Amino acid sequence: MQMAPQMGYDRAITVFSPDGRLFQVEYAREAVRRGTTAVGIKAVDGVAVLVDKRITSRLMEPESIEKIFQIDQHIGAATSGLVADARVLIDRARVESQINRLVYDESIGVEVLAKKICDFKQTYTQYGGVRPFGTSLLIVGADDARVRLFETDPSGALLEYKATGIGAGRSAVMEIFEEKYREDMNCDEAILLGLEALYKAAEGKFEASTTEIGVIKLHEKLFCKLEEDDVASRVAEMKAKIGGEGAGEA
Amino acid sequence: MQMAPQMGYDRAITVFSPDGRLFQVEYAREAVRRGTTAVGIKAVDGVAVLVDKRITSRLMEPESIEKIFQIDQHIGAATSGLVADARVLIDRARVESQINRLVYDESIGVEVLAKKICDFKQTYTQYGGVRPFGTSLLIVGADDARVRLFETDPSGALLEYKATGIGAGRSAVMEIFEEKYREDMNCDEAILLGLEALYKAAEGKFEASTTEIGVIKLHEKLFCKLEEDDVASRVAEMKAKIGGEGAGEA
Amino acid sequence: MQMAPQMGYDRAITVFSPDGRLFQVEYAREAVRRGTTAVGIKAVDGVAVLVDKRITSRLMEPESIEKIFQIDQHIGAATSGLVADARVLIDRARVESQINRLVYDESIGVEVLAKKICDFKQTYTQYGGVRPFGTSLLIVGADDARVRLFETDPSGALLEYKATGIGAGRSAVMEIFEEKYREDMNCDEAILLGLEALYKAAEGKFEASTTEIGVIKLHEKLFCKLEEDDVASRVAEMKAKIGGEGAGEA
Amino acid sequence: MQMAPQMGYDRAITVFSPDGRLFQVEYAREAVRRGTTAVGIKAVDGVAVLVDKRITSRLMEPESIEKIFQIDQHIGAATSGLVADARVLIDRARVESQINRLVYDESIGVEVLAKKICDFKQTYTQYGGVRPFGTSLLIVGADDARVRLFETDPSGALLEYKATGIGAGRSAVMEIFEEKYREDMNCDEAILLGLEALYKAAEGKFEASTTEIGVIKLHEKLFCKLEEDDVASRVAEMKAKIGGEGAGEA
Amino acid sequence: MQMAPQMGYDRAITVFSPDGRLFQVEYAREAVRRGTTAVGIKAVDGVAVLVDKRITSRLMEPESIEKIFQIDQHIGAATSGLVADARVLIDRARVESQINRLVYDESIGVEVLAKKICDFKQTYTQYGGVRPFGTSLLIVGADDARVRLFETDPSGALLEYKATGIGAGRSAVMEIFEEKYREDMNCDEAILLGLEALYKAAEGKFEASTTEIGVIKLHEKLFCKLEEDDVASRVAEMKAKIGGEGAGEA
Amino acid sequence: MQMAPQMGYDRAITVFSPDGRLFQVEYAREAVRRGTTAVGIKAVDGVAVLVDKRITSRLMEPESIEKIFQIDQHIGAATSGLVADARVLIDRARVESQINRLVYDESIGVEVLAKKICDFKQTYTQYGGVRPFGTSLLIVGADDARVRLFETDPSGALLEYKATGIGAGRSAVMEIFEEKYREDMNCDEAILLGLEALYKAAEGKFEASTTEIGVIKLHEKLFCKLEEDDVASRVAEMKAKIGGEGAGEA
Amino acid sequence: MQMAPQMGYDRAITVFSPDGRLFQVEYAREAVRRGTTAVGIKAVDGVAVLVDKRITSRLMEPESIEKIFQIDQHIGAATSGLVADARVLIDRARVESQINRLVYDESIGVEVLAKKICDFKQTYTQYGGVRPFGTSLLIVGADDARVRLFETDPSGALLEYKATGIGAGRSAVMEIFEEKYREDMNCDEAILLGLEALYKAAEGKFEASTTEIGVIKLHEKLFCKLEEDDVASRVAEMKAKIGGEGAGEA
Repeated sequence: MQMAPQMGYDRAITVFSPDGRLFQVEYAREAVRRGTTAVGIKAVDGVAVLVDKRITSRLMEPESIEKIFQIDQHIGAATSGLVADARVLIDRARVESQINRLVYDESIGVEVLAKKICDFKQTYTQYGGVRPFGTSLLIVGADDARVRLFETDPSGALLEYKATGIGAGRSAVMEIFEEKYREDMNCDEAILLGLEALYKAAEGKFEASTTEIGVIKLHEKLFCKLEEDDVASRVAEMKAKIGGEGAGEA
Repeated sequence: MQMAPQMGYDRAITVFSPDGRLFQVEYAREAVRRGTTAVGIKAVDGVAVLVDKRITSRLMEPESIEKIFQIDQHIGAATSGLVADARVLIDRARVESQINRLVYDESIGVEVLAKKICDFKQTYTQYGGVRPFGTSLLIVGADDARVRLFETDPSGALLEYKATGIGAGRSAVMEIFEEKYREDMNCDEAILLGLEALYKAAEGKFEASTTEIGVIKLHEKLFCKLEEDDVASRVAEMKAKIGGEGAGEA
Repeated sequence: MQMAPQMGYDRAITVFSPDGRLFQVEYAREAVRRGTTAVGIKAVDGVAVLVDKRITSRLMEPESIEKIFQIDQHIGAATSGLVADARVLIDRARVESQINRLVYDESIGVEVLAKKICDFKQTYTQYGGVRPFGTSLLIVGADDARVRLFETDPSGALLEYKATGIGAGRSAVMEIFEEKYREDMNCDEAILLGLEALYKAAEGKFEASTTEIGVIKLHEKLFCKLEEDDVASRVAEMKAKIGGEGAGEA
Repeated sequence: MQMAPQMGYDRAITVFSPDGRLFQVEYAREAVRRGTTAVGIKAVDGVAVLVDKRITSRLMEPESIEKIFQIDQHIGAATSGLVADARVLIDRARVESQINRLVYDESIGVEVLAKKICDFKQTYTQYGGVRPFGTSLLIVGADDARVRLFETDPSGALLEYKATGIGAGRSAVMEIFEEKYREDMNCDEAILLGLEALYKAAEGKFEASTTEIGVIKLHEKLFCKLEEDDVASRVAEMKAKIGGEGAGEA
Repeated sequence: MQMAPQMGYDRAITVFSPDGRLFQVEYAREAVRRGTTAVGIKAVDGVAVLVDKRITSRLMEPESIEKIFQIDQHIGAATSGLVADARVLIDRARVESQINRLVYDESIGVEVLAKKICDFKQTYTQYGGVRPFGTSLLIVGADDARVRLFETDPSGALLEYKATGIGAGRSAVMEIFEEKYREDMNCDEAILLGLEALYKAAEGKFEASTTEIGVIKLHEKLFCKLEEDDVASRVAEMKAKIGGEGAGEA
Repeated sequence: MQMAPQMGYDRAITVFSPDGRLFQVEYAREAVRRGTTAVGIKAVDGVAVLVDKRITSRLMEPESIEKIFQIDQHIGAATSGLVADARVLIDRARVESQINRLVYDESIGVEVLAKKICDFKQTYTQYGGVRPFGTSLLIVGADDARVRLFETDPSGALLEYKATGIGAGRSAVMEIFEEKYREDMNCDEAILLGLEALYKAAEGKFEASTTEIGVIKLHEKLFCKLEEDDVASRVAEMKAKIGGEGAGEA
Repeated sequence: MQMAPQMGYDRAITVFSPDGRLFQVEYAREAVRRGTTAVGIKAVDGVAVLVDKRITSRLMEPESIEKIFQIDQHIGAATSGLVADARVLIDRARVESQINRLVYDESIGVEVLAKKICDFKQTYTQYGGVRPFGTSLLIVGADDARVRLFETDPSGALLEYKATGIGAGRSAVMEIFEEKYREDMNCDEAILLGLEALYKAAEGKFEASTTEIGVIKLHEKLFCKLEEDDVASRVAEMKAKIGGEGAGEA
């Protein structure tokens, strides 16, 4: 981090520093920057989220490291940062979704849900006696006519992206997206690009077995995670393509 | 910032400094000074707000960076500063508007609404355990016989202007308005002047695609945002005019 | 300010310093000393308050800088200090007035109201978790047989004056009143003296357009602000008189 | 003040210092020591309180500086210290008096009332989040067969005196009382002695117009303040007597 | 005091120091050590408490300095330390006594009452936001078959003594008791010994007029204070006896 | 104490130090280590607790220093540390016992009770605004088929022992138990061993008159304290035995 | 620990450090790292937890040091860290299990329970006025078709393992598991491996008498602790095997 905080402004939660910053929120973002890399990419026919779960021991059960969650039939999310904080936010999102179904008898809008989560997060940056959430979310989903991809950060700010990344590999990921993302990609191309971004962010330490992919197609409006086999074949395809490119480049 | 705060007065929220200032409120204003530039201009037949959204990546969805909001049919607002704080204030304003409709069966007065928002903000500067809002609002609207343009800041102070600006470009904007603003302008002229102000504040880094304009005409009393095409043609007109002036000046 | 506070006594709100002072209250008074100058003057047939609003930009709407408020039919007030705090106190005063009408079916006594506001202010100097109000009020009104002029400060202290001033120009104003105030003045003479005091406090930077005057006559018992024309002609009269005096003096 | 507090024990309200003192309470006493001088004197036929109001400007309304208050028909009080705190205590005392009338259908005992006020004050020295009251009271009154004169200080301690003083001139006043007070004085003599004490404490800067005197006679049991004329003639008498003594001494 | 507290452990109320002490409680004991000296002595036929009230001015009403209180018919108490805190504890004790009468229709046991007061005191040493009581009590009374003499200190600890002292003269008093106290003394002898102890603790500055004595006889079970005359004659007797001893010693 | 705490971790109650310790809990244990020595010993036919009350003045009533308490018919406890804290815990234990009788109509299990007390203590180590209890308890009792001996410390940890000690003499006591305790001892032998341990921990300063012994036999299930005579004869027996051993050793 | 915390970030509970860490949570983990070693291992036909209880004195009752707890018929847990905190969590888990039975009339899922405990723990890391739990749990159980093994840490993070360890010996244990664990082990082999891990972590100071083993078989779904004899024979088998291996290695 490039900042040199003046003594003390950053130790009380709800205090501005002289240059108008909330250090606790910036430090919570730092917790996200230490997290696993997750990317989200929109395609013409759907939207995908991909996570590199960074499993460090063969003794772990890979599926217990959950970074992609289904919120509702038509909404999913990928998380980065403190895992226990993420679980709290995911639970909150699921409850908000069900409340919407009960009260209005229809599924919640993706943006409505994303705003509710962000309002919840904002509260933890303005009142004393709590700390901000140390977690960012990528929220994806399908509304009537289009897919959505929102990023929320610890401040409660909300942005929609065409393609974006959170976590340790964010800057590597964004560089690739700035260069290669095209709005006319279909879902399969988008996933391939996402895998490439994760691969490069991980500097090669990247395996199909620790990669999670969630997709929602515009016409189905059903969020689902890809099967392990499917993930493996896509990773293989990506590696082949990059090898080819690398060869082409060489 | 020009001040050299004595150690400590600026770290507890509700404390006066020896010279009678509330540093936390001044630091929250600093958060606004780091925000996007927004301007508001009154005309004889309406009032407009314009924002330069400062989009930094082509991967963002421009419409997700919302800086101009409709509060009620006859009221709109532009914000600068912490975006999550702004959303809280906008929500509050919308609820106050609806309460007025329900209780009195009529639309809320623009000044009444602006005062309610300011009273809400003031509370966060006098009680412990919270921080001030790091957001300024330009609230525009049409009452029975005239248009209004209010500016609120983090202290809860309320001022009405003929033309004003908030955010990073405020001083550049005000300089232009002091020089060129005329009370007999019509809406189109006012918008042109506002675009010129944003253009100069951005030192040329300014595009139609990231500019948002909201207008309310006195006779219609309906706040609406201009279409992208409309914005684009006005920006072009402004650039042509400045070029002409520049030529004239040269 | 002439004091050199010992480290720390002035940063926690409800704490006495070793010499028995409440620094936070004294600093809040400092906020008033940085405010706009307001004066109040009793006459035999009424009482007036005058404020120099210090408008710094032609882009402001002068009437939005409200420094003189009607509290009830027979009571008005002028404020100096933090404007958002002033609004809270004025709202409170208005509510207290209406409660008195509802409960006792008669208008509230001027002194009763002033005490209620002061008790409210005192609370903010004795309990933790809040800061004192950074605002002084001049409360004027007419009871059955006489007019009243109260000054309240951030400590909740209450004093009645024949003529007094608050805000940045207080000492200049008091000097003039000590020299020239006479108890047998009528309202017009009192207003003229008040304008002279404001004029001298502003060291000449003083215009009719930014001057607000509120008056209540003893026989009418109706507080009202003077029209712009009326203010302008009185300012002109005052300037002529001072010029004459200056000539006489020269 | 003669003490050299160890760093820190005096900044948190409810904390003992190593030598068993509560600095905040001692500092609140210091606030009283900076206040106006008030004296109380018992006589065989009544008890009186006298205050030197220290009016500094001819623009003040002298009667608005109220230092002697009627609590109930048979009880009065003089105050010194923070005036806003004093008002809170006087209000509390009046309410306690009325509660006693309502509940028991008889007037409250003077000592009972004084204890209630002291218990109220003690609370503000033992619990966090509040500061002690910066006010001392002299409470005088008449019970069935005798008059009472109580002094309360910021700690909530309660003492009865034959004659005593509070405020800036306390030590000067006590010196005179130690020398000249006699228990067989009647009310008029007592008032004369009280005026002499105030006169000497003020080092001659003392006028009838800013002196307030409250008296309660044992047989009437009605607390009342003396009329201005009455005060003036007694001050004249006192000055004559001192002059005579001074002559005698010379 | 002999301790050198490490910085900081003694400024927050409910915090242990590294050697397992609660400094705030020890400092509150120091407040007691600065208080007036009180002694209690058991005899075969009763128990007595005696206090040296240390009146410093002839202007005080001696009876207003109350250091011995009746709690119930069969229970009394002497206090030392902060007088306002003592009053709170005495009130509490009286209420507990009356509750016992109302609930069980019998007088409260002396030990039961002493424990209730100590439990009340303990609470103020374990929870935040309050300070311990700066007062010790000697509680005396008569149960069915014997008299009791309890001492409570600011920690809430409870001890029963045959003879003991609290306040400034405690160590001088205890020295005398250790030397001269006999369990077969009767009440009159015990009072004489108590007076001697107070006399020696005061280093001779000791007068009958400022001495208070409370006694409860085992067969009567009625706590009462001795009349002034009675106190005076006993003081005279004590002085004679000491003089004789002194002569014998010489 | 052997630790050198880093500045600050030990002054806020609920804070971990960098090496994972809760200093406040450790300091509360230190308060226990400064307390009177108490021991508990299991025998085949019962369990006993013994305390050396350390009476320092002949003026104290020895029985008022209570260190062994009956909780219920079949449960007793010995305490060490802050005596006022101990009383709170003993009261709590008695109430829990009675609740069990009322709710389930049977006596509470010894372990159930010990756990409830420990859970109560734990609460005071995890939440702010309170300090831990500065008291350890030895809880003894008889369940259906066996006797129990639990030790609780300020952290709320619970351990069962065959024989153990708390307070100032703990390490001396444990040394003796490690050497001499046998599981096949009967109650009389166990008490003798306990007395020997107390005797050695006190380095000879040990008297029957200040020793308290509580016993519960397995077949009776009635906790009772031994009479003074009984204690005296056992102490004599112990001293004889040690003398003999000493002789034997010599 | 390898970290050098900046002054102050680690003393307030809910505060992020500049690099995005919550020191209090990391210090609570340190409390676990000082705890007893516990291991959990999945087998094809069940799952086992084993603990080395580290009993330091022959006077302790070994069964009172409980480190393995039954939560429900089909769920057990092993704990490491602060024992009083562990008891709170175990109680909570048992209550959650029973609530599930009452509300849904079926046994709680192992993962559902583990998540509830983790959500409970997370709360203590985000809100002020409490400290995190200084305890990790290994939660084992059998659902319909498979066994589960979860590890929770003070942050509220949740991970499932094939084999894992917590407490002082964690790194030694994990090294052995990484080397020797096979997924096709049966329960007996798994227990043998677990004992070997504990043995090596304890560097030989390891006895059957202080070892606790809990097992749940997939087909029975009943968690139970092994009998002492059973444990002893397995420890003997393990030592023999290691000896053999050692011989083989030599």
